[in-house]
Amino acid sequence: MTGGCLYGLGVGPGDPELVTLKAARILQACPVVAYPAPDDGVSFARSIVADLMPAGVTEIPMVIPMRTERYPAFEVYDAAAGTIGGHLDAGRDVAVLCEGDPFFYGSFMYLFSRLAGRYRIEIVPGVTSLTACAAALGRPLAGRNDVLSVVPATLDEGALRDRLEAADAAAIIKLGRHLDKVRRVLDHLGLTGRAGYVERATLPNQKAVPLARLDVEMAPYFSMILVYRGGEPWP
Amino acid sequence: MTGGCLYGLGVGPGDPELVTLKAARILQACPVVAYPAPDDGVSFARSIVADLMPAGVTEIPMVIPMRTERYPAFEVYDAAAGTIGGHLDAGRDVAVLCEGDPFFYGSFMYLFSRLAGRYRIEIVPGVTSLTACAAALGRPLAGRNDVLSVVPATLDEGALRDRLEAADAAAIIKLGRHLDKVRRVLDHLGLTGRAGYVERATLPNQKAVPLARLDVEMAPYFSMILVYRGGEPWP
Repeated sequence: MTGGCLYGLGVGPGDPELVTLKAARILQACPVVAYPAPDDGVSFARSIVADLMPAGVTEIPMVIPMRTERYPAFEVYDAAAGTIGGHLDAGRDVAVLCEGDPFFYGSFMYLFSRLAGRYRIEIVPGVTSLTACAAALGRPLAGRNDVLSVVPATLDEGALRDRLEAADAAAIIKLGRHLDKVRRVLDHLGLTGRAGYVERATLPNQKAVPLARLDVEMAPYFSMILVYRGGEPWP
Repeated sequence: MTGGCLYGLGVGPGDPELVTLKAARILQACPVVAYPAPDDGVSFARSIVADLMPAGVTEIPMVIPMRTERYPAFEVYDAAAGTIGGHLDAGRDVAVLCEGDPFFYGSFMYLFSRLAGRYRIEIVPGVTSLTACAAALGRPLAGRNDVLSVVPATLDEGALRDRLEAADAAAIIKLGRHLDKVRRVLDHLGLTGRAGYVERATLPNQKAVPLARLDVEMAPYFSMILVYRGGEPWP
């Protein structure tokens, strides 16, 4: 394959210092940088590496109407893949900024599926929100022979219960408006006392509290509940 | 709490460039650095950051008789906690190097449990082998509403089958001499064609192949099988 290289760059959970040396090096060498961006406001991924963005770089914001539709806006990825493909064909390397890690519950996979096989692609793994949240809570995530499950809160109540029952440790992601349901399930399983809640891990406005002491009804997009059966109960 | 600060430093999966800017900064500022080390040979964690180790630092190798005993050598951690506690009491910051991430299946938790509550502790999350292996295979790990489970190969065959059956995506860790058993279970579930094998992810001697093409009987300690039901079958 000729042409430029597409880099899927994991930029970590939010703290600009949790970018890897490799992601920083590659970002500073790429003439084209793409990133997801909301309808209005700034791109979170871009904000993480704002201080590392080279001058004069061509920027491709992929404006994704989040939260308004159930399924991803495929036409946005079609268009972005076309634009990025044009740069790669012209021999220019392109970095795509990915919050956390490119292959861990990220939107990068929509771009990847459109470009894989046709271009050189390198994935640079990043620090995920999973371990960032454990660090924020000051509690181990999993160890020894534990089974750890990452469970989206979007599952229905029965499925959620089954998955949480079968795991020694769990990370419940995509909380949002599902917070109440998740709390009911954890209460039912007697696990509330072993659960911690984190929002905006590693950012200046990070919140990390035992779940039992959480007093909100709706969780922001960047939030997670960690449960560890093997751990000590929260004080 | 007075005294020095204990840093649990995630140094990533092996590539020295996959260290974060934060871990690099803290390491270079700590007068004392501890790390796990094997009976003979070099410490993997130390080798990752060899080029970042400050001159004149006090090093504390924690020599752990791996693989020879079923349970961790608690006396090693007792002794290390004592030594490290002495430095912290004297006001010296101590960095403990952790392969991958300190709270993700690492031995750091044995040290953490001995020192938590008595000293200031900061955990610096790192890139895990989980996402490094997905990057090596060039296949997404999990996305959308997938349940992802991390499953130790040490489970018995029935438990392994149940856990793998319930997950959309799975990472099977601690393969070693359990490789045959894991392959039987995956064959039984019809998942071999959707499984990839990785050893020594991100190191120069990395191996990443579809499981169906793997021709070894025993896997090294640093190896993993990833399964993704939602992904394309391997060619």
